[in-house]
Amino acid sequence: MKDLKFSPLFWPVKLKGKTILILDETLLPAKVKYIKATTINQVCRAIKEMKTRAVGQVILVLYAFIMVMRKNKKTTLSSLKKVAKEINATRPTLSFKFLTDMVIGWAEKEAPLEKSIFGFLEVLRKARIKQAYSAEMLFSDRDCILTHCNVSGLLPLVADLARNNKKKLSFFVTETRPYLQGVRLTAWELKRAGFEVTVIADNMVAQVMKEGKVNKVIVGADNLAQNGDIANKIGTYQIALLAKYFSIPFYVFCPPASKAKTGQEIKIEVRSEKELLEFEGKKLCSKGVKGYYPAFDVTPASLITKHIHMEV
Amino acid sequence: MKDLKFSPLFWPVKLKGKTILILDETLLPAKVKYIKATTINQVCRAIKEMKTRAVGQVILVLYAFIMVMRKNKKTTLSSLKKVAKEINATRPTLSFKFLTDMVIGWAEKEAPLEKSIFGFLEVLRKARIKQAYSAEMLFSDRDCILTHCNVSGLLPLVADLARNNKKKLSFFVTETRPYLQGVRLTAWELKRAGFEVTVIADNMVAQVMKEGKVNKVIVGADNLAQNGDIANKIGTYQIALLAKYFSIPFYVFCPPASKAKTGQEIKIEVRSEKELLEFEGKKLCSKGVKGYYPAFDVTPASLITKHIHMEV
Repeated sequence: MKDLKFSPLFWPVKLKGKTILILDETLLPAKVKYIKATTINQVCRAIKEMKTRAVGQVILVLYAFIMVMRKNKKTTLSSLKKVAKEINATRPTLSFKFLTDMVIGWAEKEAPLEKSIFGFLEVLRKARIKQAYSAEMLFSDRDCILTHCNVSGLLPLVADLARNNKKKLSFFVTETRPYLQGVRLTAWELKRAGFEVTVIADNMVAQVMKEGKVNKVIVGADNLAQNGDIANKIGTYQIALLAKYFSIPFYVFCPPASKAKTGQEIKIEVRSEKELLEFEGKKLCSKGVKGYYPAFDVTPASLITKHIHMEV
Repeated sequence: MKDLKFSPLFWPVKLKGKTILILDETLLPAKVKYIKATTINQVCRAIKEMKTRAVGQVILVLYAFIMVMRKNKKTTLSSLKKVAKEINATRPTLSFKFLTDMVIGWAEKEAPLEKSIFGFLEVLRKARIKQAYSAEMLFSDRDCILTHCNVSGLLPLVADLARNNKKKLSFFVTETRPYLQGVRLTAWELKRAGFEVTVIADNMVAQVMKEGKVNKVIVGADNLAQNGDIANKIGTYQIALLAKYFSIPFYVFCPPASKAKTGQEIKIEVRSEKELLEFEGKKLCSKGVKGYYPAFDVTPASLITKHIHMEV
């Protein structure tokens, strides 16, 4: 694992003493700026406002417990539980509860918390690197890969590993409305790592598949159910259906499985219509027009060619 | 056909003497503003810059010939052919040639041009109203209809006819990136006519279909091939594939058939990546990232439940 090059999105949250530094993804690619958080309120707000997402939120949640402990020399179990409760109330589709239960479990057993959390994060980091190695093996020289939203730094790593193996990969990225993570984050991190990347609108997927411009699809997942169904950024499901129609392999980077038995048990977060109907504060539509913004959708296991699991 | 209420988009281009007034769709819904055109250059620029689209472009092309004739008392056949050539060079996917050939044909036969053109446009107007009547019969009370892009004033007319027949229709509209015709035009014209309309991003189609939020789809077409394949705004094809998967009827308002035998013969216009990678002058992506923007796609006849043809 020597000489790996990481995207800033691979580990987008840092801890310095009692301060958490969060890479503000909403400002990318124009600005690479880290927000400071020193209270749980600030942490929860950063999660709700999607300043960081996916693995960034996992790291942030865990650092939040360390921040609280470092700020109060004698942190009680009940205060940790309060922190857990506030974090779990932020977003319905993501399984923070798995993380907060883990931390509370350690606290109940009086395990050394900081050490346990750092140990867990190091395992996570290594497991993510292993995922990149596993994914690299799925690709061949000259593959052109379609992706959606952002997989937090994994794709530049995959493409870099492939390059080391003399395989040239290029990418098509859906812009991923309404937050535009595809054009803002994925295109940015792939380009800065030296890979060819072409952005399309979310409505161009069938066309680029029909034209043969892409031959594989890879996406991340925010929630993995026990039967292999996944929840990911809205739009993933229809890309999976289209990939099936065009017989294009569809790969998914998975987190550890949640308690949901199937995708039907995963609650889908519906976010404010404002995020869809406004662009940088400017209203796109006339008064009285409604918006519907389910932030995630569920892709059934049957549409997934291969799950790239986290091996711990 | 009494008391019909028309959207401004139903007939978005007007002719006053030697001046053409073009409803600037790029400013909607914030401003309802008509651009003046008094030269063929201005007409061609309005077409290229998509100030008006679809039926608006048809009306504009025909008014352009009248404008030229009104400006020059003795218009020669060769000058009309020059106008036709300039117009035909503006956009590859649209079949203006059918229109310009028709006008040149009249001129060659020395038919009264202005009268012939106005006669044709009146037939077009009535045929479009008949299309709305035909479409209305396809819908039942409480249908929720998904549409994409904009069908130039036909949907408010359909919904109004349905309302007269005690049928309540509501709509889901894809925002239709990158020009956002769905959120800017369709949502605007439906809402101002008093109908419930909900905007979704282009990547939410499968999700709203899966949730049962929509039970029918209707779209327009920019080009109808002789075998029933259609070309329409990019994104139509994948909506048709998804509608098939979810067994949802897919209806298409069609123009007269072009000379293309099948959809494969329809040339797809690829527009500038800038239109995709910038939003109101602001760059969405970092340097070196490419964009691909096919402006149309082809939906095969096999995916179309019913063609709503123009009956003349």
